[in-house]
Amino acid sequence: MTVPDREELRAVGARLAVEAARFSALGWMRATSGNLSEVLRTEPLLLAVTASGRDKGELRPDDVAVVDARGEAVEMPGNEPVRPSAEAGLHAHIAAVTGARSVVHVHTLNAVEAARRWPEGVVLHDLEMLKALDRGAHGDAVRVPVIANSQDMSELAARFDTAYDGVPAVLVAGHGSYVWGMDTLQARWRTEALDWLLGAALRAG
Amino acid sequence: MTVPDREELRAVGARLAVEAARFSALGWMRATSGNLSEVLRTEPLLLAVTASGRDKGELRPDDVAVVDARGEAVEMPGNEPVRPSAEAGLHAHIAAVTGARSVVHVHTLNAVEAARRWPEGVVLHDLEMLKALDRGAHGDAVRVPVIANSQDMSELAARFDTAYDGVPAVLVAGHGSYVWGMDTLQARWRTEALDWLLGAALRAG
Amino acid sequence: MTVPDREELRAVGARLAVEAARFSALGWMRATSGNLSEVLRTEPLLLAVTASGRDKGELRPDDVAVVDARGEAVEMPGNEPVRPSAEAGLHAHIAAVTGARSVVHVHTLNAVEAARRWPEGVVLHDLEMLKALDRGAHGDAVRVPVIANSQDMSELAARFDTAYDGVPAVLVAGHGSYVWGMDTLQARWRTEALDWLLGAALRAG
Amino acid sequence: MTVPDREELRAVGARLAVEAARFSALGWMRATSGNLSEVLRTEPLLLAVTASGRDKGELRPDDVAVVDARGEAVEMPGNEPVRPSAEAGLHAHIAAVTGARSVVHVHTLNAVEAARRWPEGVVLHDLEMLKALDRGAHGDAVRVPVIANSQDMSELAARFDTAYDGVPAVLVAGHGSYVWGMDTLQARWRTEALDWLLGAALRAG
Repeated sequence: MTVPDREELRAVGARLAVEAARFSALGWMRATSGNLSEVLRTEPLLLAVTASGRDKGELRPDDVAVVDARGEAVEMPGNEPVRPSAEAGLHAHIAAVTGARSVVHVHTLNAVEAARRWPEGVVLHDLEMLKALDRGAHGDAVRVPVIANSQDMSELAARFDTAYDGVPAVLVAGHGSYVWGMDTLQARWRTEALDWLLGAALRAG
Repeated sequence: MTVPDREELRAVGARLAVEAARFSALGWMRATSGNLSEVLRTEPLLLAVTASGRDKGELRPDDVAVVDARGEAVEMPGNEPVRPSAEAGLHAHIAAVTGARSVVHVHTLNAVEAARRWPEGVVLHDLEMLKALDRGAHGDAVRVPVIANSQDMSELAARFDTAYDGVPAVLVAGHGSYVWGMDTLQARWRTEALDWLLGAALRAG
Repeated sequence: MTVPDREELRAVGARLAVEAARFSALGWMRATSGNLSEVLRTEPLLLAVTASGRDKGELRPDDVAVVDARGEAVEMPGNEPVRPSAEAGLHAHIAAVTGARSVVHVHTLNAVEAARRWPEGVVLHDLEMLKALDRGAHGDAVRVPVIANSQDMSELAARFDTAYDGVPAVLVAGHGSYVWGMDTLQARWRTEALDWLLGAALRAG
Repeated sequence: MTVPDREELRAVGARLAVEAARFSALGWMRATSGNLSEVLRTEPLLLAVTASGRDKGELRPDDVAVVDARGEAVEMPGNEPVRPSAEAGLHAHIAAVTGARSVVHVHTLNAVEAARRWPEGVVLHDLEMLKALDRGAHGDAVRVPVIANSQDMSELAARFDTAYDGVPAVLVAGHGSYVWGMDTLQARWRTEALDWLLGAALRAG
């Protein structure tokens, strides 16, 4: 494995900063909430995760940390250490379990309301937009799982394992959503599609 | 018929990219959803349609395909082939049936909610904004038809033919809206007016 | 009276274009709806009114017409004739009756919903934002009048006269709002304040 | 105590102008409503407060006044006098009581609706976003106090004293919210987090 150098990290950091600014403008990353990641290496797993405690509409290319499969910060030669999000462990777990290359965690009101209304999971069906989750637009009941919130990432990871059934999204009650894809663009698209789908479901009642 | 050259296509593509960015910012083209078209030639019919699988807020002038009256891609000399939207066939059908020169297909939550609530069609009346659909602001009941969704464009086309009654818009249940006009600006205006009208109707209950 | 020259008109037109772009971005001037005016002269009355049939987010400084007290277009030497909004007559009437120097007419969903819910007028009270309408924040019941819609400006003017009671705003049912002030900035502020106030009233139910 | 000079004041004014433009774009400072402050000195207390009667989306660095602990304007040598907001007295009081270095006062519809629905205070619990208010995401019931509105700042200050219990936010009924922090960035984050939390609570019903 080649160690990621500063140039590689800054390129990933710049890309995640653009994505974060987009979600921030949508009101999905209020205050310092939410975090984004990209897989840098797979064996062993290394991810770039947005830094903790920063305004997500104003991230800079350097506001990115490297974490390992447990979400622990890994120091990279030539990089100033940045504190990764406390939720980096769940990002890493999702990448390890699903093979995702990018994970988006945002705090949308639709996610919180849907998780409260349907604690057993949000069932979506007969909506064209389901194709963005690689599911059918007709006659295909897609259950987006809902898991209880926790500050303990290993607890969240265990709940994730129980709930995960192939759908590339999960809601955390009272918290927000995790959505992932094969690259950052697909993760963005699925994040936006999920919010739209939850909006449609909530309007339908 | 003169064959559209690259310059003509790029000009149309640039115009559609600007429109798509506008609708994307409104949240009406989440993920890669929705597509826009302009008629290039009428005998035989040729349309420029936005490319499939791209972020609709980030289209470039080249992200446009040429399709015939059945929505099949037509190769143009000097143009790199681009995969047209799967829904290009309905764009072409609408242009052929109505004489429209531009068709806008977006995924709005208002369209999906209205189609669910009023599956027999959305009746709008006594709203000044109806003038944007070339209808009367007083005493004129306008029924925007609702058709069932399908992945088969010939099926959608047949449903369109049954439902079409002169109103320049149709809702596809669980999916979104198609709106058209004599040029791209009029199609934009009617698209925005329709969303406003559906919003007013949904609030009225 | 000095006749307004092209320079003066373009300055007013540029100012109204900026205001229109603002309201357009808020979704209050969808399609070509709504219009703005500024009083140019008072004896006799002359107003600059935004042109009809243009996208209100894309007006240019020349997209402005001069109208008289009846809302009829007045040709100005050196200016290309522009078709004024059909609603220019109501702008002129409001300016003549109230002494307003600027009138804003927009199509907000809150205005339409409030007019439908409270056809006898929208009563607002005990809201700090009422100060933007020069009314009290406490114990002051402000009734924003609602009048029936019409395509006949003299009919709307007569309804306005019956309804007007000093509040610098009126709702037209199924249509939108007219708001005015001593200059374009005050008209903007009152327009925004009215929408906020209607939003608060509608949420209170 | 060194007296704040023009350079210092303009730097603070520029920062507050950027914040105000942000909140204005969110619709939280409609018309000329709302005001922001930063503490300049603590013994005795001096604050910079945004000027009264200006569009909060278009403030300039000079649109800032200096006030003392009672909210009275203090003339600074070399600075043109600017009329401070009438609410400056409450800003100063909050800074004195809580030790805040920055106070944000905005008019959100969520604040007004929540204050009307829960006049005894808005209880929030089991929401991850509570961490932005330095409270727990689990099992921690946070009551955001609601106080009655007044045009008399000493009356509002007395109500504040009765209601304040350590939560860095208060709702003023029929008016808006006051939120504060150790710097302007934290005050922004808490303002955005509060609006999100109120939105979540209102959706939960």
